[in-house]
Amino acid sequence: MSRREFDVIVIGAGPAGEVVAGRLGEGGLKVAIVERHLIGGECSFYACMPSKALLRPPDVVDEARRIPGAAEAVSGELDVPAVLRRRDEVIHDLDDTSMLPWLSDRGVEVVRGSGRITGERTVAVGDDELVARRAVVVATGSDPLIPPIDGLREAEPWTNREITTTKTVPERLLILGGGVVGVEMADAFSAFGSQVTLVEGGERLIAHEEPFASEHVHDALEARGVRIITGAKATAVSRNGAVTMELDGHEPITGDQVLVAVGRSLNTREIGLDAIRLEPGKPVAVRDTMQSTAHDWLYAIGDANGRVLLTHMGKYQGRIAADHILGKPVELRSDGALSPRVIFTDPQVASVGHTEATAREAGLNVRIVEVGTGANAGGSFYGRNAPGTARILVDEDRGVVAGATFTGPDIGESLHAATIAVVGEVPLELLWHAVPSFPTRSELWLRLLESYGL
Amino acid sequence: MSRREFDVIVIGAGPAGEVVAGRLGEGGLKVAIVERHLIGGECSFYACMPSKALLRPPDVVDEARRIPGAAEAVSGELDVPAVLRRRDEVIHDLDDTSMLPWLSDRGVEVVRGSGRITGERTVAVGDDELVARRAVVVATGSDPLIPPIDGLREAEPWTNREITTTKTVPERLLILGGGVVGVEMADAFSAFGSQVTLVEGGERLIAHEEPFASEHVHDALEARGVRIITGAKATAVSRNGAVTMELDGHEPITGDQVLVAVGRSLNTREIGLDAIRLEPGKPVAVRDTMQSTAHDWLYAIGDANGRVLLTHMGKYQGRIAADHILGKPVELRSDGALSPRVIFTDPQVASVGHTEATAREAGLNVRIVEVGTGANAGGSFYGRNAPGTARILVDEDRGVVAGATFTGPDIGESLHAATIAVVGEVPLELLWHAVPSFPTRSELWLRLLESYGL
Repeated sequence: MSRREFDVIVIGAGPAGEVVAGRLGEGGLKVAIVERHLIGGECSFYACMPSKALLRPPDVVDEARRIPGAAEAVSGELDVPAVLRRRDEVIHDLDDTSMLPWLSDRGVEVVRGSGRITGERTVAVGDDELVARRAVVVATGSDPLIPPIDGLREAEPWTNREITTTKTVPERLLILGGGVVGVEMADAFSAFGSQVTLVEGGERLIAHEEPFASEHVHDALEARGVRIITGAKATAVSRNGAVTMELDGHEPITGDQVLVAVGRSLNTREIGLDAIRLEPGKPVAVRDTMQSTAHDWLYAIGDANGRVLLTHMGKYQGRIAADHILGKPVELRSDGALSPRVIFTDPQVASVGHTEATAREAGLNVRIVEVGTGANAGGSFYGRNAPGTARILVDEDRGVVAGATFTGPDIGESLHAATIAVVGEVPLELLWHAVPSFPTRSELWLRLLESYGL
Repeated sequence: MSRREFDVIVIGAGPAGEVVAGRLGEGGLKVAIVERHLIGGECSFYACMPSKALLRPPDVVDEARRIPGAAEAVSGELDVPAVLRRRDEVIHDLDDTSMLPWLSDRGVEVVRGSGRITGERTVAVGDDELVARRAVVVATGSDPLIPPIDGLREAEPWTNREITTTKTVPERLLILGGGVVGVEMADAFSAFGSQVTLVEGGERLIAHEEPFASEHVHDALEARGVRIITGAKATAVSRNGAVTMELDGHEPITGDQVLVAVGRSLNTREIGLDAIRLEPGKPVAVRDTMQSTAHDWLYAIGDANGRVLLTHMGKYQGRIAADHILGKPVELRSDGALSPRVIFTDPQVASVGHTEATAREAGLNVRIVEVGTGANAGGSFYGRNAPGTARILVDEDRGVVAGATFTGPDIGESLHAATIAVVGEVPLELLWHAVPSFPTRSELWLRLLESYGL
């Protein structure tokens, strides 16, 4: 058993952990980062990155098919084996070697193994004891949640991990859960030729987004041949070669594989929280500095603090935690359900800040303004004739945009303008002078502000 | 001869004229709009719209070819006749009927013919005399400039009008002028199979943009097989079946057709400016309200005032002029060379505010920050491996972004975020909290601000 000292120990080397460790290293501190699996984490190998590698090829083929002159060039079909090979490149065949230089360039030491807090500022990794002079940062992320449905675990279901790394395309794919993972994978695998059946217990898909976003994604998936069953709960699953799922109030469905995509389980069970009088399995409660509410030397970022389960927000929290540990002033201006977010289906759903529902709940005095995302000159060239809605919520008391949701093909890159407007609290009168270039689809902003009455 | 009264008479029904007329009509005024050719103007029929109809199909095919899995689906070739047919749809076969309802819905009366100012608040159109109770707005736009080169006019050159509406693709196309029209048409017609030779008198293409933008467009055009000759002035042109162009200090070049794209000539020669003691052929000088500096009842918007020759800025000026005529407070916050602008080549060039050159000239204390446009996770899926640079100029005295230039495939829609940042003068400290969604290419903002030192 060896005992080693660092300034900061980061447990978990996903995107959030990497960012906090790298930034602390750049700040001159001696940092260790503890990882039990892959440097780069769930996002790089089993989530954001491979899912986008699967989604982008059908996306661009569909867009080309919408454009006369280009459509004729698309005389072949999507090459699914080539898509999967490219996906393997993107995830480096599950080898994290390429992730190491970024950390070592910043002087961060990688410690392989499971990190477990054993007391104030101490972390055990196997036989080693690491001691932090300044802080321990929990960045352990989350695992897919397997709900306690009779027979489900025995049916060996896929989670995001298996489906994003699969080498084969099931003939018939059942998907349990109509959240982001569920709709993205329904989109990709229907494009790859799977017969997809998607089951959602609630009344609509991607239920945290505006109802029109749920509708657009629902309609697009159905148009691709996905069978969608909403308002039906799975009660039992059995595998006998094929997988059969019993549903409450609906006849059973059968497929060759089942994807479970009903949420995440935070990885805070086995990291020693009990040793410091915190509850294992719960989010580590933090202040806006990312510092634990219970221990000044403890920080938690990313999924582990339970605030918002999005890679970019975990990285943002990583920057905040690092700056706070380095003694710089920090501020948290984007958090929780109001964070910017993109769902990479076709149409994409890109949103930031409030939806109508959260705004009403927060008691905001908002006016809703809505235009067609492609209802301008740019829309005749881009995402042509595809459905799409751009909605902003204007906070009438403050004269700023409190939320925005855009749907439409490839509309994700257009979100950042809204993010700046919402997070920067840019007054509507100033946005009016930010003239969108003609003919880009960004003229949706002009139409929105005109509709508002400017 | 009939005499009719209106509140406002607009001369010229291009985008700027339409916007001012429509907004005044919505404001309850009685408005006439005078047009000698097509309602919708140069932009709708001979410039922005048909050129984008020509550029978008090769663009999306090139993007699909960059993406493994999608590339295999693109087993055919661009269908040029289909592109031209779609272009014809976009320009409605040069029929402006579809433009009329937008104006009539707003109570705007269309008067066909050439408008000529005959005195204070009076405009003659053929035998009719129109009298304006409040204002006359000049929105007459511009025509392509044919420079006085020996033999050029006799060689019956194409201008933007002929090339954007052509039914045929020349085997060998000469282009005189490496500005926006020249590079966009070189891009499109090389994709259509023309052997293109582009001649630019200056040292580089699109000379008002950052040097790296010129380079990226130059390299991309050469990679498509375009022959580019810079620093050579045309001295004479002759047509004898083929067109031959003599160049200063370079051997002559020959093609089947020549496109002249060396600038614009303002349409203020024949609109009666002499009758109100203004100089025909010159821009109509205006204040920031778009009101003539010489006559309170006269306004000029769009190309006619010479401030900035971009459709979206003409429309912006139209909104300002309308509001001022309606007695509302107005403000001009975006103007001239600092206006947002997009060049739709592949790579696209999107910019707003200062370039390094204009910032130095203006004596600003700027720091330049630069990253690869695609050098982030989103870049592995989008515009993959294609060159691109994202540069911002930070005004160190004010802590805001004073200018931004992005190059990269399809980067045009990403400009609006920069436009909001620049025009809205959003402090860098606030931009830092506008978190780009992962994995979108918008993370270029994160990289830029990190590189700056945030």
